[in-house]
Amino acid sequence: MPAGTLGISTKKAEKFSDWYVEVVRKGEFMDQRTPVRGCDVFMPWGYAIWEQIMHYADRLFKAHGVKNAYFPTLIPESLLTKEAKHFEGFTPEVAWVTEAGDSKLAERLALRPTSETIMYYMFSQWIRSYKDLPLRINQWTNVFRWETKATRPFLRSREFLWQEGHTVHRTLDEANQEVLDMLEIYRKVAEDLLALPVIILRRTESDKFAGAYYTVALEAFAAEAGRVIQVGTVHNLGQNFSRAFDIKFLDKDGHEKYAWQTSWGFSTRFIGAVLAVHGDDKGAVLPPKVAPVQVVVIPIIFKGKEKEVTRKAREIGELLENAGFRVEVDDRDDYTAGWKFNHWELKGVPLRIEVGPKDIEKGGVTAARRDTGEKEFVEEKKLTERAAELLEEVQKNLYETAKKKLEESIVTVRTIDEVNKAVEEKKIVRSFWCGDPRCEEKVKELTGGAEIRGTKFLEVESAEGEKCLVCGKKATHVVYIAKSY
Amino acid sequence: MPAGTLGISTKKAEKFSDWYVEVVRKGEFMDQRTPVRGCDVFMPWGYAIWEQIMHYADRLFKAHGVKNAYFPTLIPESLLTKEAKHFEGFTPEVAWVTEAGDSKLAERLALRPTSETIMYYMFSQWIRSYKDLPLRINQWTNVFRWETKATRPFLRSREFLWQEGHTVHRTLDEANQEVLDMLEIYRKVAEDLLALPVIILRRTESDKFAGAYYTVALEAFAAEAGRVIQVGTVHNLGQNFSRAFDIKFLDKDGHEKYAWQTSWGFSTRFIGAVLAVHGDDKGAVLPPKVAPVQVVVIPIIFKGKEKEVTRKAREIGELLENAGFRVEVDDRDDYTAGWKFNHWELKGVPLRIEVGPKDIEKGGVTAARRDTGEKEFVEEKKLTERAAELLEEVQKNLYETAKKKLEESIVTVRTIDEVNKAVEEKKIVRSFWCGDPRCEEKVKELTGGAEIRGTKFLEVESAEGEKCLVCGKKATHVVYIAKSY
Repeated sequence: MPAGTLGISTKKAEKFSDWYVEVVRKGEFMDQRTPVRGCDVFMPWGYAIWEQIMHYADRLFKAHGVKNAYFPTLIPESLLTKEAKHFEGFTPEVAWVTEAGDSKLAERLALRPTSETIMYYMFSQWIRSYKDLPLRINQWTNVFRWETKATRPFLRSREFLWQEGHTVHRTLDEANQEVLDMLEIYRKVAEDLLALPVIILRRTESDKFAGAYYTVALEAFAAEAGRVIQVGTVHNLGQNFSRAFDIKFLDKDGHEKYAWQTSWGFSTRFIGAVLAVHGDDKGAVLPPKVAPVQVVVIPIIFKGKEKEVTRKAREIGELLENAGFRVEVDDRDDYTAGWKFNHWELKGVPLRIEVGPKDIEKGGVTAARRDTGEKEFVEEKKLTERAAELLEEVQKNLYETAKKKLEESIVTVRTIDEVNKAVEEKKIVRSFWCGDPRCEEKVKELTGGAEIRGTKFLEVESAEGEKCLVCGKKATHVVYIAKSY
Repeated sequence: MPAGTLGISTKKAEKFSDWYVEVVRKGEFMDQRTPVRGCDVFMPWGYAIWEQIMHYADRLFKAHGVKNAYFPTLIPESLLTKEAKHFEGFTPEVAWVTEAGDSKLAERLALRPTSETIMYYMFSQWIRSYKDLPLRINQWTNVFRWETKATRPFLRSREFLWQEGHTVHRTLDEANQEVLDMLEIYRKVAEDLLALPVIILRRTESDKFAGAYYTVALEAFAAEAGRVIQVGTVHNLGQNFSRAFDIKFLDKDGHEKYAWQTSWGFSTRFIGAVLAVHGDDKGAVLPPKVAPVQVVVIPIIFKGKEKEVTRKAREIGELLENAGFRVEVDDRDDYTAGWKFNHWELKGVPLRIEVGPKDIEKGGVTAARRDTGEKEFVEEKKLTERAAELLEEVQKNLYETAKKKLEESIVTVRTIDEVNKAVEEKKIVRSFWCGDPRCEEKVKELTGGAEIRGTKFLEVESAEGEKCLVCGKKATHVVYIAKSY
């Protein structure tokens, strides 16, 4: 694949949107030059990050008792409409299959926008007794939302990849506990794997998942854009779907009862968040734990030393690979070392090892961190140990830097004017709300699109003594307001 | 999930089709009780086999330099029609998206029946120079073929899961070599992983992939059905697609040239073949290498010994799990040991460990093989070693039994009458053909659906001195004729 024109021409802090698209394209994460808008190509470099995420999360899911399965993509219209609010929520963005071969179908089939309906149609056939519970099913699939808004690679597209988990429980308590357990797994994926600090918010009633009892979302924060990015959601569905889909079980007490359910999903948006949060003016900066290549080894060629340097670079590559790192030795002879530095910086590889004649003389290599740009000489015999340390430091530094930016961005204000000023300054607003959806709607109108994203879910914040930032009546909620992708 | 009514009510050798569907359903591999015919649910037990297959093959692909990516599901009609023969081959079974949200689309979008067209549209943008070659891309996805024929779980459905690999090369030689390399990887998946012996056949001109230069297929054989099952295909596409999609590269000699391409795919059909080939009258028999559970440990409860036996069974389970086996301890107290035996036999678990009071007294367990039913006492301190041996023996026995059946089924005949007799006896026919497609068509007509499946690809078989089984003219090909799924 051609590397494309090198170098990012826009500054992240100045024109964030342009910068983002440039990193995605030039870093070869995604290719949007497809025939259908919003249906993009996950290029190998971008897809490999998704593979790392899948691998990590899948192990956590399985350890929690979740089993993978695969349900049909196509959902008959009559099934999709069964839970009325759910259908209402998704219908504007459903793509429909109406023809096959030479014939017109008797009923339109939706490309899954999410799979509650088809899964629960099956669950109602699978579940008979409390012995069948809890049921925990997950699938890794493509999914379709026919966005009419402007699309943005990874963050808003018409087809994307995700996992959707669906669980069924005997009691509401168990379903509530499941929400907490899944939030912890999602937090691990975001913070521990991807170095993305998140705020965990309970969505407002108007903003919850269509058909849910309540929705909790994880939000990452792109400081230079001043926007939050929803990277995962966990829903307690209550009994709304079990009633619509007749998911009943015979309980221990001999009574037939409707089951309690949860569903939860995260998607390839995570990749967009990683690029948006960690990237810099040179391109992507990938957290070592998910970087498809963690260490790139580049021979620094001087005339007369070509063979020696290349041989050593390969040796170093092997040494690192045998130690368990994901390594690429870029020994292509038709590109200069300088070109290669730019290329791998753009792609976000966290650690570069340079092997030049001087390094060899001194019995070592030069190691350069992608996040700070710091360089140091490392003796060969200490290399695997030092590489592990450096990668750990990069991972930690990415998280801490992002965490600091997130924390510093949160400002508490009490009026719409202050909200507007804070949003202008790319802040996340903490404020107070009476709970009235009309006031919530007003916030959107008066701030040019900033929204109440919800209330903290895992901690209790008191709004005592505060007034609603819109109507001035007694506030009942401490809310977070921000623009979002 | 409820275990369903236990026990297979039909005999494999008597009513193969009914037997097959029963194993799929009662073994909880796939659920066909969905709202759209041919769009079935891969249940956790069936999907877990697919995960094992993906894991194994993906490592081989990557070691061969293949990179994973993801391309859009939806392909505009105008793109699908670009390679005329390709489109002609697929158009009768394409499902079309024509509407999204409230609006009708300007152009129909096909649900990928395969992805040559969308991938090569992108490849033509990615490839500029010989430096970009070889390009090797794979994707693991869902795929759609709107079958009008009767569907059959895993073997013929409207949506299934597969991998499709697509490679681009400088020369025809390289593309030919790639075909050989991929055939070897596919053979490993079939024979080494799934214990499925295969015949590797070059398809006839009329039967090759739509748009290919030539097609090679791997056929497994379900002896009791007397039918071959195509489990994978590898195509040399020549320059047919590179010309249609304008995939050109600047070669070392400064000239612009059309690239040479291959594509190759296998699917969840593999699971169907595993069930069809290895299963018996008690249900599925899974090769240990892909069995989601390799060893099931069942406590044999006697009154007064419940706690002791259950504790020991869990201990044994842990011992085996720590040794790296995939283990399930079935210590549910609301099912009898006999019920559990049937349940796990039906699901095909290759090794059962029984832990009863007598076993405990003697310091060991009873091990029972799924394939032969043989039981033996194993001392606890030798258990992990013996379990590994037994699983290896099961794996080997499944392959060798299937291999023997396959080899014994091949009969060489010279007339249509003999073909009919052999097909009736569930044989694979080896015969001689002049190469004329009219004679090929006649074979189908005169045998009630048996087909010329092709000629051996990796060995040369001479037809010297033989006559075409249809027209009696000089034969030029040694062909294999069989019914298929």
